[in-house]
Amino acid sequence: MKVPQGFEVSGVTAGIKESGRSDLGLIYSPLPLAWALVSTTNLVKAPCVSRNRARYSANTPVRALVVNSGNANCATGEQGTWANEDLAGAAAAALALDRVQDVLTASTGVIGQPLQIDRLGAAMPAAARQLSNDTSGFAEAILTTDTISKEVAATLSSGARIVGIAKGSGMIHPNMATLLAFVMTDAKLPQEQLRELWPTVVDNSFNQLTVDGDTSTNDMAIVLSSRRVDADLKEFVEALTDVCVRLAKKVARDGEGATKLLTARVTGGRNDAEARAAAKTIAGSMLVKSAVHGADPNWGRILAAVGRSGAVGDLANIFVKMQGTLLYQGTPQGFDPAYVSRQLQQPEVLIEVGLAAGDAVAEAWGCDLSADYVRINADYTT
Amino acid sequence: MKVPQGFEVSGVTAGIKESGRSDLGLIYSPLPLAWALVSTTNLVKAPCVSRNRARYSANTPVRALVVNSGNANCATGEQGTWANEDLAGAAAAALALDRVQDVLTASTGVIGQPLQIDRLGAAMPAAARQLSNDTSGFAEAILTTDTISKEVAATLSSGARIVGIAKGSGMIHPNMATLLAFVMTDAKLPQEQLRELWPTVVDNSFNQLTVDGDTSTNDMAIVLSSRRVDADLKEFVEALTDVCVRLAKKVARDGEGATKLLTARVTGGRNDAEARAAAKTIAGSMLVKSAVHGADPNWGRILAAVGRSGAVGDLANIFVKMQGTLLYQGTPQGFDPAYVSRQLQQPEVLIEVGLAAGDAVAEAWGCDLSADYVRINADYTT
Repeated sequence: MKVPQGFEVSGVTAGIKESGRSDLGLIYSPLPLAWALVSTTNLVKAPCVSRNRARYSANTPVRALVVNSGNANCATGEQGTWANEDLAGAAAAALALDRVQDVLTASTGVIGQPLQIDRLGAAMPAAARQLSNDTSGFAEAILTTDTISKEVAATLSSGARIVGIAKGSGMIHPNMATLLAFVMTDAKLPQEQLRELWPTVVDNSFNQLTVDGDTSTNDMAIVLSSRRVDADLKEFVEALTDVCVRLAKKVARDGEGATKLLTARVTGGRNDAEARAAAKTIAGSMLVKSAVHGADPNWGRILAAVGRSGAVGDLANIFVKMQGTLLYQGTPQGFDPAYVSRQLQQPEVLIEVGLAAGDAVAEAWGCDLSADYVRINADYTT
Repeated sequence: MKVPQGFEVSGVTAGIKESGRSDLGLIYSPLPLAWALVSTTNLVKAPCVSRNRARYSANTPVRALVVNSGNANCATGEQGTWANEDLAGAAAAALALDRVQDVLTASTGVIGQPLQIDRLGAAMPAAARQLSNDTSGFAEAILTTDTISKEVAATLSSGARIVGIAKGSGMIHPNMATLLAFVMTDAKLPQEQLRELWPTVVDNSFNQLTVDGDTSTNDMAIVLSSRRVDADLKEFVEALTDVCVRLAKKVARDGEGATKLLTARVTGGRNDAEARAAAKTIAGSMLVKSAVHGADPNWGRILAAVGRSGAVGDLANIFVKMQGTLLYQGTPQGFDPAYVSRQLQQPEVLIEVGLAAGDAVAEAWGCDLSADYVRINADYTT
């Protein structure tokens, strides 16, 4: 994919991943970038998260973002803090930036192992040399257990562009989980506006994503703007949200061991928070995920998930649909289970729940739970 | 197991379960029983839960409890409410009780299918005839996907006895989940005292149990006392808690597809609520459960689970142990992963976390996540 105006990106192999795949990504801009950040709520935070938060508080533009995969550089003690600073320093040097503060950092991978900063430092000049306007190398370089790279683009009527790149896979859940998302845009927006709108966009997209309920120590979603092309604010927010939702769905579909994308759509909530919670509880329920894997139209599990989500509904009128078929509305509905089961064998499964208590609507995205998830995560990795 | 004084129990086959296994259980007392109830917090509640709650508000003693397994009689509309009332009525008739209000009810099994009350009614006289002082038939009759029946007993120094019987398996999580627990005692305690102490006992036992994070619509824990034998209150509460903890562990060990009992012990919490939350988050983490299944000493996942639990710890001093080996304390510790992995192949796994922030201590119990869990729950059941 082509980057928006004012960006250059690259991805190279530094030798962090044993597989030999690329593991060092760089985003660079010749001019200062406005940016906004949402990061993990986990008490245990990797140094890259803490450092970016500090940069965020400083409220100054940045020029570059460096990402390594294969090692999360988390729970690595003081040594890890210095390694992260060195990562930023190596990028600043390779890009001939005066200020190391102008570089953001991100790491993803295993926890608790010393970051091989020497290898990253050695590969940095190559990453700087290979900067181009094609995102594919960068999108590859940030992956961990992902099976495919994830890129989404949108163009506004003014010609302004938005390009989002993400990595996900396991340990994905509300509040950032093991998700890295970087969105580049050339839409002209003040940094303050970007910062104001970004948390809501993330709430309506990445934070409605759940793969296994585990939140990670390293995750962040960052939007960067080169501010080159005029854009209508409302159109921009809609397009940005759409880009992030599409990225979130790509992450869900590529969940560890996943064979299906699961979308839970809740309508009729008393308020947004309850609708979101209900959707997320459905999409995150191990029993619902198992039923979706087995193509089982088990509406009882969906109803039970809604019931424990904290959302209040009108019990006499709550409805549950799977793949468009009404299964329950106050009482069980007559339906052909064999037919619905066949519909559930498709790669995309839609669960709809009507709470019949208000007007709020929300979606959440997850995946089915397969025996492969267990295999992937039970492997001896330490 | 022998029942405490003043109880008779039975279990028979009514034909609800397709397997032909027993599915109707009865507890009876010739004299009024003091009792206390904790039931599911799920918004969606089965009629048996609503009815027992109403009985509980009435604050009168009871004489009997009838349980059917194989059908939860939940989300079955108004018809389900009447079927539940008929279940109590059939028990009252078979036991020659004047007041149907003196009978508590419980149902467990699939959701949303009409309860075959005719079969239960037809089997009720046999259940009444077969009442005895041996609990094994009752303990069998309340099971669903459980692989073994669960009974625990304790005797106080006064000779008073406590006998607890539970069923569990999947869909087990904080706040009752698909758990039925019935505890009988002949310890002499006023109903008010029993009601006052029961919620705390349940918080410290069954509510620290997590199999898959799904809470159910039918679950309850009930303690019944025939008030025959004097007992010291403190000794009684300790013994009752111990009985319930042992039952909770039996349920965890028999979780769907489980091969190991996972105990998470958290020390050094700022308060009980945080310690409990941290323990429960560890024991419930899909990534931790997968690692335990694979005998992987993956302390990073444990740390990440603690971090998202909301518990506050001293990051420089937090420690993580598996099977007694220190893996992390502020920084990663040197340990022999092959040795710890061998220790993790045992049927009981202990994870210890020290938050280093206070004096609060808590335990939670769960099980590993196996590919069999997925197989059991992906089966086409509707």
